[in-house]
Amino acid sequence: MTSRKPPSPELIGRFAAIVGDRYALTDPDTQAPFLTEWRRLYHGRTPIVLRPGSVAEVAEILKLASESGTSVVPQSGNTGLVGAQVPDESGSEIVVSVSRLDAIRAVDPQGFTMTVEAGVILERVQQAADEVDRLFPLSLAAEGSCEIGGNISTNAGGTGVLAYGNTRDLVLGLEVVLPTGEIWNGLRRLRKDNTGYDLKHLFIGAEGTLGIVTAAVLKLFPKPAAREVAIVGLARPEDAVALFDRVKKAAGNSVVAFELMARRGLEFVLTHVDGARDPMAEPHPWYVLVEIASGHGRDEARGLIEETLGEAFEAGLISDAAVAESLDQAADFWHLRHMLSEVQLHEGGSIKHDIAVPIAAIPAFLDEANAAVEKLIPGCRPVPFGHLGDGNLHYNISQPEGADKEEYLARWDDMSAVVHEIVRAHDGSISAEHGIGRLKRHLMDTVRDPLELDLMRRVKRSFDPNGIMNPGRVL
Amino acid sequence: MTSRKPPSPELIGRFAAIVGDRYALTDPDTQAPFLTEWRRLYHGRTPIVLRPGSVAEVAEILKLASESGTSVVPQSGNTGLVGAQVPDESGSEIVVSVSRLDAIRAVDPQGFTMTVEAGVILERVQQAADEVDRLFPLSLAAEGSCEIGGNISTNAGGTGVLAYGNTRDLVLGLEVVLPTGEIWNGLRRLRKDNTGYDLKHLFIGAEGTLGIVTAAVLKLFPKPAAREVAIVGLARPEDAVALFDRVKKAAGNSVVAFELMARRGLEFVLTHVDGARDPMAEPHPWYVLVEIASGHGRDEARGLIEETLGEAFEAGLISDAAVAESLDQAADFWHLRHMLSEVQLHEGGSIKHDIAVPIAAIPAFLDEANAAVEKLIPGCRPVPFGHLGDGNLHYNISQPEGADKEEYLARWDDMSAVVHEIVRAHDGSISAEHGIGRLKRHLMDTVRDPLELDLMRRVKRSFDPNGIMNPGRVL
Repeated sequence: MTSRKPPSPELIGRFAAIVGDRYALTDPDTQAPFLTEWRRLYHGRTPIVLRPGSVAEVAEILKLASESGTSVVPQSGNTGLVGAQVPDESGSEIVVSVSRLDAIRAVDPQGFTMTVEAGVILERVQQAADEVDRLFPLSLAAEGSCEIGGNISTNAGGTGVLAYGNTRDLVLGLEVVLPTGEIWNGLRRLRKDNTGYDLKHLFIGAEGTLGIVTAAVLKLFPKPAAREVAIVGLARPEDAVALFDRVKKAAGNSVVAFELMARRGLEFVLTHVDGARDPMAEPHPWYVLVEIASGHGRDEARGLIEETLGEAFEAGLISDAAVAESLDQAADFWHLRHMLSEVQLHEGGSIKHDIAVPIAAIPAFLDEANAAVEKLIPGCRPVPFGHLGDGNLHYNISQPEGADKEEYLARWDDMSAVVHEIVRAHDGSISAEHGIGRLKRHLMDTVRDPLELDLMRRVKRSFDPNGIMNPGRVL
Repeated sequence: MTSRKPPSPELIGRFAAIVGDRYALTDPDTQAPFLTEWRRLYHGRTPIVLRPGSVAEVAEILKLASESGTSVVPQSGNTGLVGAQVPDESGSEIVVSVSRLDAIRAVDPQGFTMTVEAGVILERVQQAADEVDRLFPLSLAAEGSCEIGGNISTNAGGTGVLAYGNTRDLVLGLEVVLPTGEIWNGLRRLRKDNTGYDLKHLFIGAEGTLGIVTAAVLKLFPKPAAREVAIVGLARPEDAVALFDRVKKAAGNSVVAFELMARRGLEFVLTHVDGARDPMAEPHPWYVLVEIASGHGRDEARGLIEETLGEAFEAGLISDAAVAESLDQAADFWHLRHMLSEVQLHEGGSIKHDIAVPIAAIPAFLDEANAAVEKLIPGCRPVPFGHLGDGNLHYNISQPEGADKEEYLARWDDMSAVVHEIVRAHDGSISAEHGIGRLKRHLMDTVRDPLELDLMRRVKRSFDPNGIMNPGRVL
């Protein structure tokens, strides 16, 4: 069993010897960046941060951890939002950072694959694909600092899911160091391979509780020749769902983004972001940002988006629409969307939810949730936005104007209970893309029945019998 | 532990009582269709075939099987190619057919999902999607009789993989009866849900060794407005790989099929199929059948395919091309491809392989494999064809002209050893889409290292501690 006591100085010395003193951080100052995550919900302690420079070193570390019953917290870019990647407050957990495993091992443009190590920053993966005229479509706000090992371990979502899937769908093979220190080479580059259980899917999204992902084979895609972006004004979420239907029918898998925003969010952006401009002359209760890619050429995507929006206008589904006339204007439209999270900081406390429901249930969810939170805290201001095409909404609620921020945030659990109950009634998810970590672990038995939790624990026990990998996260 | 002795008459009576006498088949004549698969490699015996009419009955059967240590062979449409779905010769295994679980439980066109039971025939799934103006893209030769539970349990491939993925990629949620008789309700309809381990992927492709899939939530897609089909003549497989690159770049995810065929296969079709016509005036060593879908309209797909093939011709990659002028002609082109398997029956014995390699390695694989099999059995006639876009080839080899069929087929294992060695050298798969079952179980330790096999066995033991589910298959 793992110990909740700090490892002995002798044991710490043995861990340090594996990576060498330069990469064994025991000084509080050099440790600091590894101990806090950016939302600052968690701040932990550790006797040692290890920065292995090879897969063999990772294996040695886990072998020793297994033998000595030492708990291990794997970390890559440290941009996770649920506290899975920082040590707890006990001082008993060691941190293993994979950031030095940053080689791009192979790029195969003809086979549309790339083999990368866990510590490669997502943006570098994107660039390496771009250099061989390919697209790696995973894209999210943290892409300049998050690392692919963490993206895989959390099954990251982001803005490209509608056309390309979640991170899970972008992985062909994995290399994983198991809790015992054994190295599983599952670096397959094949699109089709039916030879036994597909183990990689257990490690993807396991948040480091079953082993440490050290490398992966990623899927690449052709680069679209053109992208067209439009913002649409609508009266109701129902109309947005109907519009999604039409756009999907017209453009199929070329629909790259279909993002819903309430007017309130746009107003926050217009108020707080320098130079932000209302994209339309009149205000509308709801907006959708649509992006369509085309392999063929600009004219095709342009014609398609204009025709589809024109027909939707005639059908009374939409009130107004603006198609970006230039790449700059397309970037401006996206900027309105991307700033939605940040501007909420200027409107006092914000209680956040990362939920998903079946797409057709989105209008009912919004009606019910808006009514329920207003009843709980009159005057609170929902700012729903997110990936309608994936059924994933960031259902954030700003405090009532003039309310006390701390008092408001103290109601987080009450508010979430109300929202999550509605999510469950629609067969939804309380963590669509951010994961469970420590933040939502106490909610697992409200969203998974005892049998499913038992199956997960059986898998955990059979892969990590000593329970050394990221204990207290997920399960 | 499970028994290799037939269950006692008393135990058989208890199993029969669960489903009722009408659906408990003990008579050899009524059992016969459940005991042989269509390639006739396996013919088994069983004391009883059970045809449960509800998920609750499946659960009762597995509970009793678990308690009594009775081995269970799940079966759906009985079209599998590796012997996983028929009982062995011992007479100790009972067969559980899910064909009566044939309800389409829900269709949600707005959410692009459908919930179906395991016994629904694939063609009925396709039709139910079509009725709500949606596409369920899984398509394979057996679609008129195979059932979706089997497609899921074998992670079926087929002709739509390039654009839509394998069956695994088409499943959002599962309902599974576990070996204990407990029912896991994992019928999620969400595109994004990061709440713990994604267990469904363990059951998909497990060939019934971890439990019985009783229902699934499937992904639906927009129906393409138009499809264009062309046949292209080429000098070399290298040129086919380069053409694939161009077509993917031009059409992205709209490339629905990219099938490679050697001239010899086409000649077999022209010889043995009434009314089959050579699609081009001159013969070419290799052919590619390309299909491109368009959400927008016929003109777009047509323009795209003509332009891309025109450029490829100018670049010297292709020798000739014929774009189908009508739906009938498109069907004729596909008919040439679909008849490739059947016509090999008329050319004597055929030794078959279902392999995959990285796309870029296909030309080298073909060179090396053709040389190696010619060396082993001079005069043998390779008829390679398959899904180049997935890296998946059916590398079949017809006997030398005039050779003795039985003598030739007796060399199957020698031939496969030679072919599979080349597959492994290219990091390929010896079972790209058909699975392992009983046919290839003895090869598992040649393609998976001891650690990975051990991980699979740990999963197996933790889900099926008594080893009752489809023993002797896969692992």
